[in-house]
Amino acid sequence: MLNEALAPDIQALIAKKSWSAVRDAVANWPAPEIADLLLALPKTERAVVFRVLPRAISSEVFSYLTTEQQNQLLKELTDEETRQLLAGLSPDDRTALLEELPGRASQKLLNLLSPEDLAEARKMLGYPEDSVGRLMTPDYVAVRRQWTISQALAHIRARGRGSETINVVYVVDEGWRLVDALELRRFIFAEPDETVEAIMDGRFVSVRASDDREEAVRVMQRYDLDVLPVVDSDGVLVGIVTADDVLDVAQEEATEDFHRAAAVAPLKANYKELSIFTIYRKRIGWLLALVFMNIFSGAAIAAFEETIAAVVALVFFLPLLIDSSGNAGSQSATLMVRALATGDVKLSDWGKLLGRELFVGSMLGATMALAVLPIGALRGGPEVAVVVALTMLLIVIVGSLIGLSLPFLLSKFKLDPAAASAPLITSLSDISGVLIYFSLATWLLNLPG
Amino acid sequence: MLNEALAPDIQALIAKKSWSAVRDAVANWPAPEIADLLLALPKTERAVVFRVLPRAISSEVFSYLTTEQQNQLLKELTDEETRQLLAGLSPDDRTALLEELPGRASQKLLNLLSPEDLAEARKMLGYPEDSVGRLMTPDYVAVRRQWTISQALAHIRARGRGSETINVVYVVDEGWRLVDALELRRFIFAEPDETVEAIMDGRFVSVRASDDREEAVRVMQRYDLDVLPVVDSDGVLVGIVTADDVLDVAQEEATEDFHRAAAVAPLKANYKELSIFTIYRKRIGWLLALVFMNIFSGAAIAAFEETIAAVVALVFFLPLLIDSSGNAGSQSATLMVRALATGDVKLSDWGKLLGRELFVGSMLGATMALAVLPIGALRGGPEVAVVVALTMLLIVIVGSLIGLSLPFLLSKFKLDPAAASAPLITSLSDISGVLIYFSLATWLLNLPG
Repeated sequence: MLNEALAPDIQALIAKKSWSAVRDAVANWPAPEIADLLLALPKTERAVVFRVLPRAISSEVFSYLTTEQQNQLLKELTDEETRQLLAGLSPDDRTALLEELPGRASQKLLNLLSPEDLAEARKMLGYPEDSVGRLMTPDYVAVRRQWTISQALAHIRARGRGSETINVVYVVDEGWRLVDALELRRFIFAEPDETVEAIMDGRFVSVRASDDREEAVRVMQRYDLDVLPVVDSDGVLVGIVTADDVLDVAQEEATEDFHRAAAVAPLKANYKELSIFTIYRKRIGWLLALVFMNIFSGAAIAAFEETIAAVVALVFFLPLLIDSSGNAGSQSATLMVRALATGDVKLSDWGKLLGRELFVGSMLGATMALAVLPIGALRGGPEVAVVVALTMLLIVIVGSLIGLSLPFLLSKFKLDPAAASAPLITSLSDISGVLIYFSLATWLLNLPG
Repeated sequence: MLNEALAPDIQALIAKKSWSAVRDAVANWPAPEIADLLLALPKTERAVVFRVLPRAISSEVFSYLTTEQQNQLLKELTDEETRQLLAGLSPDDRTALLEELPGRASQKLLNLLSPEDLAEARKMLGYPEDSVGRLMTPDYVAVRRQWTISQALAHIRARGRGSETINVVYVVDEGWRLVDALELRRFIFAEPDETVEAIMDGRFVSVRASDDREEAVRVMQRYDLDVLPVVDSDGVLVGIVTADDVLDVAQEEATEDFHRAAAVAPLKANYKELSIFTIYRKRIGWLLALVFMNIFSGAAIAAFEETIAAVVALVFFLPLLIDSSGNAGSQSATLMVRALATGDVKLSDWGKLLGRELFVGSMLGATMALAVLPIGALRGGPEVAVVVALTMLLIVIVGSLIGLSLPFLLSKFKLDPAAASAPLITSLSDISGVLIYFSLATWLLNLPG
């Protein structure tokens, strides 16, 4: 996958402290590989190697480090070195650094920024966390609608050097409001004397800087774009978001939803780099909450202690039945959480989907009831078999409906639907499962309740 | 989010059959919006509106339809219309269409392709399903290393019209082997008389056409790229993959893993569009398999029927204990499945992570044991409390270790680690949980075993 030029003897050069040889050796490595090399070095050598990197590369390498690693490295650099490093970072990487560093470190960096970069950073930090504004970069190329194509091309040539992409050129009006997004090739193949207005088609989509960054993922995916313009509440163009940033967001959001689906608080970092105590902290909250919820299942069981004492064989089927209900519910919940996240399903679809789920749940429950019928007969005779099969049918339906509905309910109350995790659904299904099972048994087997 | 130009009275124009007015009205809509409009129309009118679309737009709109919808629409078109439509599709969209249509329809389309497009389609269809080769497009711009900058720019201008991106220009040697990937701006700001070789830096990454498409996601994300060159086994440049395609892949793969995490077979389609029977089919397999697995929990319980009959109060804690084990296991499994998918964790990390998990699991188990101790004392007295707390400690550790290990084991045997779903982990934890609980109880409470 990687360009083969990576030399293996770099460690030897570092051991010999041949710094300029190290610089030459890594000069044509991709930045993430250089970042990996840095991480493998002891702290002091890390700073030395970082310092000898060509300036254009060092800022890029820096942006591939985690915040913790960046903070460590910054402590080793002089103010002047830091100033140059900051100037070399792209605005979105700079915003990410400033928002994630501890307050003091972040303040120190702000003091080292040029007045222009400072104004830009202040503006981007003013947008809410996880908003498009934090993700965007102001390095785009915009032209005015009344310019001629040749004027526009001259401007693109002059401005394009520092912009993140020149595939798309933005057209703005007098008030810098976005009026179109045109591919560069349309300028190249247009007549030089035409106006920009003449090649406009008004076909463009944009997102608001205040939108949630997931909105940028959805729009970019829906319209198959590689770059997305960002406007403020007046439609004024304030930046662009590129696909590589959006891909990162999509993966991060998917990871967070994954973790929530298993009742883990989002980690916000590489699993391997987390301390044991952090992992403990992210996991214990829900585990304890679920323990207390499960006491209700216990209480439901306690209410039927006489039933159980009379037919101990009923306990045989308890894990099987409550697990089946929880499994069916987990399936429904996960399907809904993901469909809501990708936009395949909307809040208003609940009613319609509930009806469908009743059907699906009944079919699933009936199939599973048939499967347990012979086991019930074998272990407890025909009467127990009927109780077990009927319970299976009912609790699979109930589990499915709980699983389908909880993500919608959470959304309705402005909570994250992903909190409808498999463990939570399992616990809820357990309580209803225990009640249904032993109630049916008491009733159908004429037992003391 | 969307450009405000969308007129609401389009339905009226369609009702009046003012087709040219419809064409003018939608001409500046984004393609996905036009696709949505088509889907809202009855079949016959859909074909008519599609036919009146400007040719440049109709192919784009077509690519936003699902395969089923594309197939329906194709049936309404003449051979000549189909030929023009196919010629207008980008090669990667064309491959997707050909691979997903039923065999007969696909063969018919192949017959309508131009000889060039046919050769291209045959080649791309030759790569394995879910490979990078199926995803790539051959519409890139490549220059030779010995050309001058002005020769290269002339070529870029001539070829750029049909290429998917011109942000990045590829440099190839005599055998069309990829030797560098350079941003367009470097050509624009270089001296016209210099050779391409002079501005090369050899810093590039590529993927193989035969690689799994998830590899393209990982590489693009790791190196923050918007476009990725694709080479064959000899290093010959065969195409490029753009970020918008990779974003789709990332989302699809995440959705599949989500579904697997809840023991649902991947749906490969929008949830809302699936039939009830398809959903049933995707869910029933694992549900039934898990029922039969849970019989082992039942069997474990049956082995301790006398213990249960002696102290019925033990059943009170059964759901609480086995659920806790399953919950801790689900957490570990999900953390591992996702970390393996994103590349944060590698197969070789297992040993190290197992040691860490033992620590985390012990801390979680100890905390939860303390939490259940008073409940145990309240419900069953001090002896039961000790049994319940000790069981909690042990089964949370066991559950965590099972959850951590199963994804690695599945990977080792070349199976999808995502099959380590929460329901599967729950069932496995249940069996061990039941055995540990009742064994401890029998032993510590001196009960008949």
